Amino acid sequence: MSPASRYTYLGPEGTFTEAALRTLPEAATRELVPMVSVPAALDAVRSGAAAAALVPIENSMEGGINATLDELATGVPLMIYREVLLPVRFALLVRPGTGMSDVKTVTGHPAAQVQVRNWMSANLPDAVWESAASNADGARLVQEGRFEAAFAGEFAAATYGLEPLATEIHDAEHAQTRFVLVGRPARPAAPTGADKTSAVFWLADDHPGALLELLQEFAVRGVNLLRIESRPTGEGIGQYCFSIDAEGHITDRRVGEALMGLKRICPQVRFLGSYPRADEVRPKLRQGTTDAEFTDAADWLGRALDGRA
Amino acid sequence: MSPASRYTYLGPEGTFTEAALRTLPEAATRELVPMVSVPAALDAVRSGAAAAALVPIENSMEGGINATLDELATGVPLMIYREVLLPVRFALLVRPGTGMSDVKTVTGHPAAQVQVRNWMSANLPDAVWESAASNADGARLVQEGRFEAAFAGEFAAATYGLEPLATEIHDAEHAQTRFVLVGRPARPAAPTGADKTSAVFWLADDHPGALLELLQEFAVRGVNLLRIESRPTGEGIGQYCFSIDAEGHITDRRVGEALMGLKRICPQVRFLGSYPRADEVRPKLRQGTTDAEFTDAADWLGRALDGRA
Amino acid sequence: MSPASRYTYLGPEGTFTEAALRTLPEAATRELVPMVSVPAALDAVRSGAAAAALVPIENSMEGGINATLDELATGVPLMIYREVLLPVRFALLVRPGTGMSDVKTVTGHPAAQVQVRNWMSANLPDAVWESAASNADGARLVQEGRFEAAFAGEFAAATYGLEPLATEIHDAEHAQTRFVLVGRPARPAAPTGADKTSAVFWLADDHPGALLELLQEFAVRGVNLLRIESRPTGEGIGQYCFSIDAEGHITDRRVGEALMGLKRICPQVRFLGSYPRADEVRPKLRQGTTDAEFTDAADWLGRALDGRA
Amino acid sequence: MSPASRYTYLGPEGTFTEAALRTLPEAATRELVPMVSVPAALDAVRSGAAAAALVPIENSMEGGINATLDELATGVPLMIYREVLLPVRFALLVRPGTGMSDVKTVTGHPAAQVQVRNWMSANLPDAVWESAASNADGARLVQEGRFEAAFAGEFAAATYGLEPLATEIHDAEHAQTRFVLVGRPARPAAPTGADKTSAVFWLADDHPGALLELLQEFAVRGVNLLRIESRPTGEGIGQYCFSIDAEGHITDRRVGEALMGLKRICPQVRFLGSYPRADEVRPKLRQGTTDAEFTDAADWLGRALDGRA
Repeated sequence: MSPASRYTYLGPEGTFTEAALRTLPEAATRELVPMVSVPAALDAVRSGAAAAALVPIENSMEGGINATLDELATGVPLMIYREVLLPVRFALLVRPGTGMSDVKTVTGHPAAQVQVRNWMSANLPDAVWESAASNADGARLVQEGRFEAAFAGEFAAATYGLEPLATEIHDAEHAQTRFVLVGRPARPAAPTGADKTSAVFWLADDHPGALLELLQEFAVRGVNLLRIESRPTGEGIGQYCFSIDAEGHITDRRVGEALMGLKRICPQVRFLGSYPRADEVRPKLRQGTTDAEFTDAADWLGRALDGRA
Repeated sequence: MSPASRYTYLGPEGTFTEAALRTLPEAATRELVPMVSVPAALDAVRSGAAAAALVPIENSMEGGINATLDELATGVPLMIYREVLLPVRFALLVRPGTGMSDVKTVTGHPAAQVQVRNWMSANLPDAVWESAASNADGARLVQEGRFEAAFAGEFAAATYGLEPLATEIHDAEHAQTRFVLVGRPARPAAPTGADKTSAVFWLADDHPGALLELLQEFAVRGVNLLRIESRPTGEGIGQYCFSIDAEGHITDRRVGEALMGLKRICPQVRFLGSYPRADEVRPKLRQGTTDAEFTDAADWLGRALDGRA
Repeated sequence: MSPASRYTYLGPEGTFTEAALRTLPEAATRELVPMVSVPAALDAVRSGAAAAALVPIENSMEGGINATLDELATGVPLMIYREVLLPVRFALLVRPGTGMSDVKTVTGHPAAQVQVRNWMSANLPDAVWESAASNADGARLVQEGRFEAAFAGEFAAATYGLEPLATEIHDAEHAQTRFVLVGRPARPAAPTGADKTSAVFWLADDHPGALLELLQEFAVRGVNLLRIESRPTGEGIGQYCFSIDAEGHITDRRVGEALMGLKRICPQVRFLGSYPRADEVRPKLRQGTTDAEFTDAADWLGRALDGRA
Repeated sequence: MSPASRYTYLGPEGTFTEAALRTLPEAATRELVPMVSVPAALDAVRSGAAAAALVPIENSMEGGINATLDELATGVPLMIYREVLLPVRFALLVRPGTGMSDVKTVTGHPAAQVQVRNWMSANLPDAVWESAASNADGARLVQEGRFEAAFAGEFAAATYGLEPLATEIHDAEHAQTRFVLVGRPARPAAPTGADKTSAVFWLADDHPGALLELLQEFAVRGVNLLRIESRPTGEGIGQYCFSIDAEGHITDRRVGEALMGLKRICPQVRFLGSYPRADEVRPKLRQGTTDAEFTDAADWLGRALDGRA
């Protein structure tokens, strides 16, 4: 297939990222290529070798995925076009014929260990854990006979000739991972009414109230923030940029005006895209923040400038 | 002369308002008509009987002139085109031949009494004060022999056949009165770089933080307020509107955006004009509030909407 | 009677101020002395000639009473102990035997004219108005035969041998006047749960955002403002102090902390008293602003300082 | 030695954490015990097996160290008593006799790779990188002959029988790592005038402006934030707590009042300690935020409560 129909993702095959990618309808008609790292997946997009990349950006247990946040904040610009939310649910994968009492050693990604700790205490109190490079890698090691069991997505069983001994394993009810589909910059998708806008802002040096001012640019226009994370700029301890998700679409007047406000006071702003919210939640707008109210106010100003207000 | 060349002012002749009006170059070619009250002076403009009216709006000793503030806030809309600042300096006017030791009774407007109290204690400790309806009226009463002396503007001496026994009388060094030239709404004068914008805002009922929100609409765009006064709406104790002067011109992007922000959150806004500051002070703009920065940010947003930011 | 049992008020007898004073239970056992002006009424308290003075401070049609606001803000300090709200209701007072068709001339205080204008248009369209120095003075002039009728409080009829031809006259349904009972500074009355705190704040020179900061000191502690008025300091145009009423009592922790915050950032603060609200409205406190929550937080800080938080 | 004189740290021996620990004067008289992970180092303190633990908390290239932030935010409370800043400077360690041209394979911690990438491009363009579990582990692998060279601290050379082929290697001039010395909660060290206060705050659910309110509690008392990081609470995407460093000491009145303000509005607050700043920078206090000004304002409030203000 051509690069235009190729999507990369954080591999290897059989990880949750692949499962997230397969929830997108268009994935059925794309060539899906696993990459060894987030930078590798994104660089394939930058170079034109792929049309888009799916990478994790946030996990409700571990927080922001720094590699993704930093790749989006720096280097050749990219843009987010879609997000996918995937509940974190593990299966305990074993070679056919293995029973619970046979499981003495277990593997999986270190992040998985955090999320199945309680389940293991209750169900496999004596099993010994050893970490693998990825959940899929853990499954491969079980296939090769190095461990009796691996925690991975149930969808990975077939790939590695394993079967699930238990499914729907998770310590935290609401554990989710959020993935984003990233492409080269272009016109954002049309607003759906339940949208999200991502951006990165750098603060001026030595300006202690700067974050408060940044938040006020959003608050005064009634734009809610859904996520805010500080990331070091690499210029030394105490130098940060902020990665945010705001409610609404860049074509919403309140969002556009807030972004322009930030553009004026920040030394640097990077727009990362406006795209549909996976949870389809629509904003509750306070009085004075709808597009109609922005238009009315602009009309009024126009009349005032003409002496007809 | 035709109504188009007629200016009304708060009379009678010989008051400070007339003196303020005569500082305007165009006054030399206008018919200047004293009126008995601020509403009368302004209604002549509303009805088309006069082109403009000069009325006092603020006094550094007495504060806002309520009649003017309330007339501008309600009724048929009017607009401010000019302001005049006049230092408060009184003369002690007497009939020719009167000396200081002859002065047993003194008159003048009640507001004048406040501003010459110390001077009187020092120079006329035994003189008895009686109030007149206006400073000019006091001069007339001296002319008629009812009092030995009147505090009034030195310019009133000739009108009433009096002469100044002392001039430059003032208790407070910085005492000033501010007057505004008011006309029917039209396109505001072009910005000079040292401008002022006046407006009135009504707050939504039962919304305690509303004034704070109103001020934040200005603050977030770097627009300084030079004056703010609450006035009752007549709807009962605790119901106010706010009359403000802001630094800058309605065509300044920061000012226009702040006014639109207020238009969206206030139940009612009345634009009262943008006009040159009498003190010619230019604003010190903080970073991110110049027109050039607004334009750059709008260009950036346009590129972002096209995928080229 | 002794000065300790003497209350002054803004006279003359028969005005609304006297009527307001008589709504206080203790007025029955005090000597009530009318004074010619607000400063005179308050100076009697300052000098010890009277225990307290009742003066108007705010009118829902006319706004703040500048003489009262300025007297409380400057000079020897005084304190507010009580407020009285009086609905504005006029009677048309005439000499016995006068009928509506006999009324050709009418008098009253200028403020009364504003509040009965519509009623006069409907009921006495041809009557000529001439202003008097006070409503009570108007009644006296009717008694003397100078006018056929005066607008005044119905209670003034007996004093001047007049009778009401019409009562309950008012253009604005909610028109009220607010009066305050002022004494020498002492410990404020105990909180009732529906209290009000009055104060005056001076802003630092040349500090445009100062009013916003002042309001934030209240907002961050959840203290609502019920009234705010700017008054000139006399130092020149653009120099203001602010007279405010806040919800709550100085002994409420949130109010005390806000006042201390203002004391730290303002060059001058004058506490004018905490006293029961005449409307008996209790504050709706947001989370984190009750005294119990302040105490819990202080206990927590104490434990943190001891390493036991 | 007894637990009271035992300090744990994030091992193994020869890492930057050990180097940071050795900059503390008291380290010379303590038993220094390397642990396999941040949780292990801190749990030794919690259990009483050690008096304190030194762990990394922030890196100017990689950002906050999540394991440390999360351990401090949850579980049995701990407190920070000291911070150490260490510039990031690598040495290229080799077995004696190895020259630059012999180096075909290089190892080190993945974080090191990020910080020497440019140096490698310039000096070892053809060398192949493979990651090790820690910088010290990389040195051990060189000792064992698995790689020709490792990036590690110069101080690690002696431990592993290696020698530095190059020193002071760093891509970013200002790259630093920040470490904290953590113990069981106790009375914080006395203020030095150049102090830092750390804390964690949870926001109330579904309250979009909550972060802005939190920042205003600091801003209104003039307390600058030096660091702010959001961390997931584990309750699902969009649920965060905030880990902050503020300028000043908990015994500074402005800091204590801000912390109490947060305690009142946040569902949970954890105080993590007040301790001397490693960079010894003293705060520039704005007017109204010194302890003397807090004391003056409290005295004034006391007088106002007594009627003597």
